[in-house]
Amino acid sequence: MAADTEPKKIIIDTDPGIDDAMAIFVALQSPEIEVIGLTTIYGNVYTTLATRNALHLLEVAGRTDIPVAEGTHLTLTKGTKLRIADFVHGADGLGNQNFPPPKGKPIEESAASFLVRQAKLNPGKVTVVALGPLTNIALAIELDPEFVKNIGQIVILGGAFAVNGNVNPAAEANIFGDPDAADVVFTSGADILALGINVTHQVILTSSDREILASSNGKFAQYLHKILDVYFSYHQESYNTKGVYLHDPTVVLAAVDPSLVTCIEGIVRVQTSGITRGLTLLYNKQKRFGEIHEWSNKPTVKVAVTVDAPRVMKLVMDRLLDS
Amino acid sequence: MAADTEPKKIIIDTDPGIDDAMAIFVALQSPEIEVIGLTTIYGNVYTTLATRNALHLLEVAGRTDIPVAEGTHLTLTKGTKLRIADFVHGADGLGNQNFPPPKGKPIEESAASFLVRQAKLNPGKVTVVALGPLTNIALAIELDPEFVKNIGQIVILGGAFAVNGNVNPAAEANIFGDPDAADVVFTSGADILALGINVTHQVILTSSDREILASSNGKFAQYLHKILDVYFSYHQESYNTKGVYLHDPTVVLAAVDPSLVTCIEGIVRVQTSGITRGLTLLYNKQKRFGEIHEWSNKPTVKVAVTVDAPRVMKLVMDRLLDS
Repeated sequence: MAADTEPKKIIIDTDPGIDDAMAIFVALQSPEIEVIGLTTIYGNVYTTLATRNALHLLEVAGRTDIPVAEGTHLTLTKGTKLRIADFVHGADGLGNQNFPPPKGKPIEESAASFLVRQAKLNPGKVTVVALGPLTNIALAIELDPEFVKNIGQIVILGGAFAVNGNVNPAAEANIFGDPDAADVVFTSGADILALGINVTHQVILTSSDREILASSNGKFAQYLHKILDVYFSYHQESYNTKGVYLHDPTVVLAAVDPSLVTCIEGIVRVQTSGITRGLTLLYNKQKRFGEIHEWSNKPTVKVAVTVDAPRVMKLVMDRLLDS
Repeated sequence: MAADTEPKKIIIDTDPGIDDAMAIFVALQSPEIEVIGLTTIYGNVYTTLATRNALHLLEVAGRTDIPVAEGTHLTLTKGTKLRIADFVHGADGLGNQNFPPPKGKPIEESAASFLVRQAKLNPGKVTVVALGPLTNIALAIELDPEFVKNIGQIVILGGAFAVNGNVNPAAEANIFGDPDAADVVFTSGADILALGINVTHQVILTSSDREILASSNGKFAQYLHKILDVYFSYHQESYNTKGVYLHDPTVVLAAVDPSLVTCIEGIVRVQTSGITRGLTLLYNKQKRFGEIHEWSNKPTVKVAVTVDAPRVMKLVMDRLLDS
């Protein structure tokens, strides 16, 4: 990736989260990216803790110039009990390291309002990288009918396309976190690129990659090496692997270099009830149906089907070691 | 396939249907198969017409010794409006050929009761080949708690595993026809092999295969050549192909020669409501989930993932031309 053009303005909607931390550091280390804000959401942790962690991570990086806008504490339909993945990321979301509280504070503006305002300020120029449940994005869409036109692209970590989920056999965690919001976003007509676990499960940071981080003197490498312990344990237990999936960093990199993935274009709907609640289903338009169905006349989105995992891994390591 | 062992006792649960007709003829022409009965179900046509067509097809074949037991006219939960695929198979289910009514009658016994009795008579020896919605099979399971033990195997044409459906992007027609029944059958603990459209869409009878049928003097070839017209038109329109999918014959053949397919074993559940109603979701057990989910502690089934299409096609043609 070359930074010979203007860096891309990116807002990261995040629920840090161990791989969120890695993704934020990768973004901050990428010359192609100008992080213009973080917005926070529940998922790996509750929203309050996500905000605290977002502020903390920016302080670790020395980038307290970047605003943090706190997101919603509730799902779009308000009634749903939140599912918090503390068993993946630790009770603090950052590998149970007992980091001191951040000195900074979030801005007064809500995440949805921040998203709407930034998209309006720079029409077509802002990319949202959505690393958690899609509630803030859906709220922005509801808040401003122009948002889907003003926003450049929404790049989503979410879904399990034609594979089993990671919350249960049907659903991936971010979509399961707020299926109603996800269906609003996928059918909004915005320019959307989704990376599901069908591709992010191919990008694996191994034990030996982690050793390389450990033996580096870089501040990001040192920081991440420590918090990764909990994440490795979870993967060992759940997937029987000695590596961890780099969901969030992959999505950040694909947002600025789409050549890292190949995509198909189709219509995505989300099942919002029943045993497959949170399931993402892509209609690839290969069959012409005689009957009207729930995918009919909805806008298409791009869904990643392959990823150049070695190139993603090299970029992640290069960026993290360079500090 | 060799017939050096006792032929397999098979009951075909069917909604004829153009490819059902072909499947029934293939079964009758297969030395490995002893068709001990047909049971009828709605799907391609209403159940009354399915019964009439089943009797008619046996008369065409000169096999009126085989009993036909009429199945249910309603879905398992009774309330669902039936979806009848007359636009695929013609208003008569057999290519709009205006065949004369059959002389025979169905037996007095219901399909479910016939299935239960035959399984009890020959424990472990009867295979049900289910070519329509699974209501009769679910009723047999409800009727007799021993049925799932007594039945040898249930071989199902149903589902769209990790691919789009053929009724809508989520659902395949047989499962969509009665999702509640399908979920009962898939989770019943019976020995189940399912072939979804992900494999049957690979078995294609081309225009030139049809010409071969047309130029043969065999009675089955002549009969099928005529009724195939409507089926070809539907495929041209919906899939833009000059061939037709041989769903039902493939399933009949796989029921007696499992080496025609490769399978994975997992747990299948069916979504019964919402926009993905009728979706089949296979849990492949690769991830260990920390939380209880709707696939937990359910029995496994076999799901076909590949098919030896050239060998299936050769068997179909050989059997149909040999008459």
